[in-house]
Amino acid sequence: MKVNGIPTRTIWSVDHGQAIGIIDQTKLPYEFKKEVLRDWTAVKDAIATMKVRGAPLIGIAAAWAMVLAIRDNAKDDFIHQVRSELIATRPTAVNLQWAVDHMVKRVISLPERERLPVAYKEAEAMTQANVLENRAIGTHGAKIIAELYAKKREPVNILTHCNAGWLATVDYGTALSAVYIAFEQGIPLHVWVDETRPREQGLLTAWELSGVGIPHTVIADNAGGHLIQHREVDAVIVGADRITAIGDVANKIGTYLKALAAKDMEVPFYVAAPSSTIDWSVQDGKHGIEIENRSGDELRFIRGIDKKGKVSEVQIIQAQTNVENPAFDVTPARLVTGIITERGVCAPEFLTRLFPEGGRLQTRG
Amino acid sequence: MKVNGIPTRTIWSVDHGQAIGIIDQTKLPYEFKKEVLRDWTAVKDAIATMKVRGAPLIGIAAAWAMVLAIRDNAKDDFIHQVRSELIATRPTAVNLQWAVDHMVKRVISLPERERLPVAYKEAEAMTQANVLENRAIGTHGAKIIAELYAKKREPVNILTHCNAGWLATVDYGTALSAVYIAFEQGIPLHVWVDETRPREQGLLTAWELSGVGIPHTVIADNAGGHLIQHREVDAVIVGADRITAIGDVANKIGTYLKALAAKDMEVPFYVAAPSSTIDWSVQDGKHGIEIENRSGDELRFIRGIDKKGKVSEVQIIQAQTNVENPAFDVTPARLVTGIITERGVCAPEFLTRLFPEGGRLQTRG
Repeated sequence: MKVNGIPTRTIWSVDHGQAIGIIDQTKLPYEFKKEVLRDWTAVKDAIATMKVRGAPLIGIAAAWAMVLAIRDNAKDDFIHQVRSELIATRPTAVNLQWAVDHMVKRVISLPERERLPVAYKEAEAMTQANVLENRAIGTHGAKIIAELYAKKREPVNILTHCNAGWLATVDYGTALSAVYIAFEQGIPLHVWVDETRPREQGLLTAWELSGVGIPHTVIADNAGGHLIQHREVDAVIVGADRITAIGDVANKIGTYLKALAAKDMEVPFYVAAPSSTIDWSVQDGKHGIEIENRSGDELRFIRGIDKKGKVSEVQIIQAQTNVENPAFDVTPARLVTGIITERGVCAPEFLTRLFPEGGRLQTRG
Repeated sequence: MKVNGIPTRTIWSVDHGQAIGIIDQTKLPYEFKKEVLRDWTAVKDAIATMKVRGAPLIGIAAAWAMVLAIRDNAKDDFIHQVRSELIATRPTAVNLQWAVDHMVKRVISLPERERLPVAYKEAEAMTQANVLENRAIGTHGAKIIAELYAKKREPVNILTHCNAGWLATVDYGTALSAVYIAFEQGIPLHVWVDETRPREQGLLTAWELSGVGIPHTVIADNAGGHLIQHREVDAVIVGADRITAIGDVANKIGTYLKALAAKDMEVPFYVAAPSSTIDWSVQDGKHGIEIENRSGDELRFIRGIDKKGKVSEVQIIQAQTNVENPAFDVTPARLVTGIITERGVCAPEFLTRLFPEGGRLQTRG
């Protein structure tokens, strides 16, 4: 997508894989700042601190971390150690594990000296594939929005939670890819943007949408139920960090609450994600997905612009107050109308029909 | 309740009704500041800006505003004008309308010169009655917590939204009154405190609970569904701004979402409120209760402590971004396990049995 008129992606290879470039997303929406990461530990830290974030993007970033690691040391032991450390940074999003395992599988049977060029090529291919996947997700999702418009003949109101936009992927996004493509097709629409406490990823979504002129309104996370109840929402579309074989969906904390409201009011609830987000080894998401607990400081401190116009942080909850900060929740498949993938849209129970190869993994696993 | 060891209420008469004292709740939890309001417009402004807040408290504050108004001008026209202006400040909480109408009814048939002393006495009586009501609510609510403890034999986890504590009333609170009395009775408990964006009333709740040493944990509004799903919540107890004759409950925005999660997981969901919160003239809350929309600046700006230790505000959402800020939502009666009133606890459909005089109003209205 374009930033100030310049086509921009969230991650790119620098000096033919000697480093990677990223956008430091912790500085958005107040500052747009690129950063070059020169070794795998810098990428690991960027994933842990959410400079790069969003399930698909942290998968790709981890693939590049493997390239930088192999450049330094192509031995088996080291590769396995890097694999474990990367996976441990963000335990919920399965794309990270998927990407790292994919890289290890591609290189581990090769002689050490052949590993780096293969890893580099593979990371490049995964990066490009993510862009194409997201366009495909968007094309399938836009059809849903077009159908809602055909029935309503008034602007379609989409509610989204967190940021499942181009910033959460290499480009285009997942949930927002559908919005972008529908908007390109001229379908009148408006997006309700959940603020998404504590990390305020809704502000990333608002920043993205304003970049292309899509009408949107930011709301407190508390407000979505009321809007759904009053028919101000035609569909909820969110991304995912992990989808189980039966269609339970781990996504940003608070997603489950919106899914409940959508179900209560019979508003369709869609999840948009590439197939690398599906964890075929897990059935029951509530018990089978590890939910990352992040630092309470994410709730205690908040960043904004102070009276002098400078980016500044204030502490809203004092240090001695107990705070708990689970970063994700699980929405049971029964609340999900459809999953929008690069291959098309299906009800959660038909995931294995859309991805028979995944279904086979499931049987084996 | 005590603040720094000193018994404190949220509102008190100054100079025998020549003014009223309040705690400026917009400054909490960072500063504890009392303020004296010397005329009815100052009280009106304090209600509108949420210096005094909480459905029961704004009712009492409005009663005192009537006293100060009548002191200045006891004529019918003026009293009716003040009545309308006060009611318009916060349209959702019915306690305000109830209190103002009650005051008008008490004085309007009297000769003008008799109105002030009667109004003063009535406001005093309503203030004292609120304290007793809240103790009664707490006693009934504490029984529920005691029963949960009897079954569990481990600390009872209560989740609450917004602030329905002593700050929201004259003293003791509604939902938190139950918690305070259970705690006084030695029942082990812990409170999950919803942050409650955008106004952060959860921080008032945390401030109250830490004042008496009740274990509590602040969470993002998004987190409650996950905690309920994982059986970390034994009961949800919230306050109310208006309850309809059939038990639909208007309360702080986001309450509906927690009620849905509680229903989904079969966790009891209680609403604690005095009978002045019941609006017998309305049945269907979704269509019959006006939901106050407040300024988007409540979402755009947030207050905290800056790096120099000073109270400071930062802007988290830029001025040109559209923001919508509905302040309340309606939880349908079907999601409510019980309503805790000063007369006891009942299922929403039995409100008219507990309050037959209200039921009669309903028939007439």
